[in-house]
Amino acid sequence: MTTNAHELLQSTRDARGVVTLTLNDPARFNALGAEMLSALQQALEDAGRDEAVRVVVLAAAGKAFCAGHNLKDMAANPELAYYQKLFAQCSRMMLTIHKLPVPVIARVQGMATAAGCQLVAQCDLAVAADSASFATSGIHYGLFCATPSVPLVRNVPAKRAMEMLLTGDFFDAPTALAQGLVNRVVRADALDAEVEKLVESILQKPRVAVAMGKALVYQQRELGIDAAYQLAGQTMATNMMDAAAQEGARAFAEKRQPTWKR
Amino acid sequence: MTTNAHELLQSTRDARGVVTLTLNDPARFNALGAEMLSALQQALEDAGRDEAVRVVVLAAAGKAFCAGHNLKDMAANPELAYYQKLFAQCSRMMLTIHKLPVPVIARVQGMATAAGCQLVAQCDLAVAADSASFATSGIHYGLFCATPSVPLVRNVPAKRAMEMLLTGDFFDAPTALAQGLVNRVVRADALDAEVEKLVESILQKPRVAVAMGKALVYQQRELGIDAAYQLAGQTMATNMMDAAAQEGARAFAEKRQPTWKR
Amino acid sequence: MTTNAHELLQSTRDARGVVTLTLNDPARFNALGAEMLSALQQALEDAGRDEAVRVVVLAAAGKAFCAGHNLKDMAANPELAYYQKLFAQCSRMMLTIHKLPVPVIARVQGMATAAGCQLVAQCDLAVAADSASFATSGIHYGLFCATPSVPLVRNVPAKRAMEMLLTGDFFDAPTALAQGLVNRVVRADALDAEVEKLVESILQKPRVAVAMGKALVYQQRELGIDAAYQLAGQTMATNMMDAAAQEGARAFAEKRQPTWKR
Repeated sequence: MTTNAHELLQSTRDARGVVTLTLNDPARFNALGAEMLSALQQALEDAGRDEAVRVVVLAAAGKAFCAGHNLKDMAANPELAYYQKLFAQCSRMMLTIHKLPVPVIARVQGMATAAGCQLVAQCDLAVAADSASFATSGIHYGLFCATPSVPLVRNVPAKRAMEMLLTGDFFDAPTALAQGLVNRVVRADALDAEVEKLVESILQKPRVAVAMGKALVYQQRELGIDAAYQLAGQTMATNMMDAAAQEGARAFAEKRQPTWKR
Repeated sequence: MTTNAHELLQSTRDARGVVTLTLNDPARFNALGAEMLSALQQALEDAGRDEAVRVVVLAAAGKAFCAGHNLKDMAANPELAYYQKLFAQCSRMMLTIHKLPVPVIARVQGMATAAGCQLVAQCDLAVAADSASFATSGIHYGLFCATPSVPLVRNVPAKRAMEMLLTGDFFDAPTALAQGLVNRVVRADALDAEVEKLVESILQKPRVAVAMGKALVYQQRELGIDAAYQLAGQTMATNMMDAAAQEGARAFAEKRQPTWKR
Repeated sequence: MTTNAHELLQSTRDARGVVTLTLNDPARFNALGAEMLSALQQALEDAGRDEAVRVVVLAAAGKAFCAGHNLKDMAANPELAYYQKLFAQCSRMMLTIHKLPVPVIARVQGMATAAGCQLVAQCDLAVAADSASFATSGIHYGLFCATPSVPLVRNVPAKRAMEMLLTGDFFDAPTALAQGLVNRVVRADALDAEVEKLVESILQKPRVAVAMGKALVYQQRELGIDAAYQLAGQTMATNMMDAAAQEGARAFAEKRQPTWKR
């Protein structure tokens, strides 16, 4: 059976500008094969280009969230060039999440392993069901989770990250919360409601301020503190000249709720 | 009514060299207007120049710790140059805290929002009353807390920082403690005693070692680990040549308490 | 009594390739004098060169884990060149742990102070007895723990690290766990069993993947995220070409356990 992008990755968009991308290959635990990566890349770029989109929710169908790369495909293609292309494609998709002008929220309903765990780490925010589990498990198959380590060490304390990467063992959702990998953990039946709280909060904010802010946070984090303040001050002054921020400041002064085109 | 620096910012200095700067504009929730920023800048520079000063406590009068920038003033001055100047002035003050040769301890008795939350994050140490609350709330008014994000991401795990910045929601003192934004949380009536413990601990240490150490920590953190060790080793050797460290090492060898000009 | 390297530092190696280095100078709380540092340097380099070695456990004899530098020796040699040489020697040893191709696990049975606390922070993983205690205590003797601050700020949240460094006060094992300084805390009589769990987990993984992975994590952490992904993708493709990873992927595809020369 040939799969197509529509089947592999379901994309919905509601009237509020909320795009939900659902990994839909439960039989293969939503593995990030080349087709799935292409579909994600396309869908993320589409969302980024569309100014009416305000937030992306990354969800998954079935019992697993995402099992990472498809080791079966990798076993069938023992060539350096194949692997280089695959990891470059995957890293490009991860960096697209990072650079998207709207926040990306991971909705983690199940197991997130290897590049699936990376996907959670790479999203701006993440909400997990208490039944979710996490592992950077590649090392069990002789493949150290090198690319997953990139967002992992930027989210989780150093020794915990090293332990996860060297042991490959599963850790549960409360541990993921304690380590900073996810923002919130709730019962599975409350997962959508909890994601919706974050979505609704973001929808109430002006798009331009959110876009400027997300980009600034990641940029300034890589700079020394003097350069970081320089860039942040410039960004904030520019943000303040936006019509929505002007309205916000006036609303504050006039003790009323701001009204703006979100 | 014209306010002057004395009224806006109270400064006391005790015989031990403890400077307490108290934001004193409770009617405006101790907002960081241009005058308040100037008064803080001046007071911090004075403290930094005075070799008899050993530690600075940053406190606030009234129910709020600090509400950040004065949105009313900002609404009244819709000009890019005004905002650039304001954020540059504020960032300069924050970096003065960062570069001060003595530790700066935030004494957080109430609400700390936007640049007020930034002030807490930027201090070297922070003690909060359990009734204190925190928010990077600018985004509620269409203004992403860009400059507050600079010390925030250097203190708090990445996904928590992003959640605070995107939602703008309040979080309580125990959460601030768990996330690393403050060092200690105590009952409001124990706040001064807890701050005093840190103050007294610092007073027992030689000024030169504290000054070298504070500067080194922030410098080396921005370097690769090889360069960081290079700088730290050089700093430590220099520190060891100081009379107080020599006395300390001798006192250790002779199993007695060191005595030094603090 | 003249001590020699054998007495100061015990080294054992079992048939599995587990090297255990035991600081064995309990009368001086396993202080890192010049001889101890030389012995550690030599033993670590030997372990790094031997491809049959898979993991290093750093342990200590007696009640203390390690008291850091020998302040008595330092008091007896009040010369800048002496201190520069000492800290350079110590930093070199710490960086050797960092760059060793096998993981280094600290087995912390007791007090770890100053450069002893640094040793724990610098190891890739650490397991502590619940009776262990930790302090960056140099500042009590007028000497700020500058070199210990290098791994400390890379493991522990910023304000906690600053508090530890400025106060020099002891904190207990559960606090060390909560702050990310150690991976696990267990009862003293369960310490060996807990270290063994990590050892056994690492032994099950291929040496080349572990070596590539450890190096990659520390390298990419110092890069911007784009360069980090570039390096990680290249590392992962190279890792995948290794025989063990090929076997691992095939084993996954064939739903069996991989078998490899560990």
